[in-house]
Amino acid sequence: MRPKIYLFGDSITEGSFSNGGWGASLAHHFARMADVVLRGYIGYNTRWALKVIHKVFPAAGDAPLAVTVFFGANDAALPDRDSGFQHVPLDEYKHNLLAIVAYFKKQWPSTRIILITPPPVDDNARLLYPFVEKPLGLPDRTNEAACQYAKQCLDVAAECGLPAIHLCEKMQQLPDWKSLLSDGLHLSQKGNKFVFEEVINLLAKEQISLETLPADFPLISEIDPNDPLKSFAN
Amino acid sequence: MRPKIYLFGDSITEGSFSNGGWGASLAHHFARMADVVLRGYIGYNTRWALKVIHKVFPAAGDAPLAVTVFFGANDAALPDRDSGFQHVPLDEYKHNLLAIVAYFKKQWPSTRIILITPPPVDDNARLLYPFVEKPLGLPDRTNEAACQYAKQCLDVAAECGLPAIHLCEKMQQLPDWKSLLSDGLHLSQKGNKFVFEEVINLLAKEQISLETLPADFPLISEIDPNDPLKSFAN
Repeated sequence: MRPKIYLFGDSITEGSFSNGGWGASLAHHFARMADVVLRGYIGYNTRWALKVIHKVFPAAGDAPLAVTVFFGANDAALPDRDSGFQHVPLDEYKHNLLAIVAYFKKQWPSTRIILITPPPVDDNARLLYPFVEKPLGLPDRTNEAACQYAKQCLDVAAECGLPAIHLCEKMQQLPDWKSLLSDGLHLSQKGNKFVFEEVINLLAKEQISLETLPADFPLISEIDPNDPLKSFAN
Repeated sequence: MRPKIYLFGDSITEGSFSNGGWGASLAHHFARMADVVLRGYIGYNTRWALKVIHKVFPAAGDAPLAVTVFFGANDAALPDRDSGFQHVPLDEYKHNLLAIVAYFKKQWPSTRIILITPPPVDDNARLLYPFVEKPLGLPDRTNEAACQYAKQCLDVAAECGLPAIHLCEKMQQLPDWKSLLSDGLHLSQKGNKFVFEEVINLLAKEQISLETLPADFPLISEIDPNDPLKSFAN
């Protein structure tokens, strides 16, 4: 009976319930109103996401209020570096995102689909925090590539008439944007807070907020101390 | 298709997805295996919980892997103090807990029902962090009362043959147990970590762990960098 908000994405989604994570913060924010359901897959790109989407979101499921689609950080891994097996070419990324959106639109016509671009990349930090050894001495991801994929994600949102969070651009508007990242790629606590705020602001514009959603069952503030059970009569 | 773990309780449950909360930590722990679903109700006692349980967990719902039942902190509010409207007498508390357990057992015979006792209370801190003014200069809750309710919760677990976490006792085994509380009643970050660890340890004893649950869809560590799509063939 509680409506759901799905979070579909890669490691930046899968890790979003860690300490201070944006997903956990959303769940806390909507604690009495909506279930925030984690569907994050570390390392996944849009190509792999499309291989599992039918199983992750089977046709029988109820339509959620919203779903965030947050891929691109792995698609943008450079093809000739040590995370190259995660790379997806830019035009295929766009095509795959369109297919993900089409899947959700067909399945859940009333659900708000929210695209989130990959965050920027701190090239130097990627050398300090590599996933594996870097024999070439070059980063696996670059900000230049991340920004290209982010731009493509925005184009998909515009083509589909969907709201989007241009995380790559918005984060870089802060002078100390690199502090929003923990390893040049994933979100720091500060970055998680940034994403949380962007998501609740966008949800509010889509009429999904503490003001519009009903809370389930009487809040303590609504319970009459002199006759508590009156609140539970219905 | 993902199994669920429900968290049913009062504010110590409703707040469990805040920064470093035990619920969010559980969701992070089981990120690819189970959905941790929040059903916490600030201020609720077992009397009020029984008024809503049929709506919170309707008969049509799938059986979860486990449900935590974590009430007592409000039942144990002293009747003649300023949170007295939340008080439930000790024998009714026991009766109500038995009814909650009976409801879950009938609904979901295979689900692990896990009772968690209320935590201890730091009487002095309750005076420093009152919910409302304290004209009497006396705390709304005391450790003596909390321990009585915790004991009753343990008795219910024993009578029903259920696993339980004697949080009240376990926390007080630490010399600095008061640091596990933020306001003499609710959990600090350290207290949240304590509860998280108790819960995953108990779940593991009940065969619910990272070792026993299947992860949905290939983990990045299982994907062959030379032929990633092979992992998605089935």
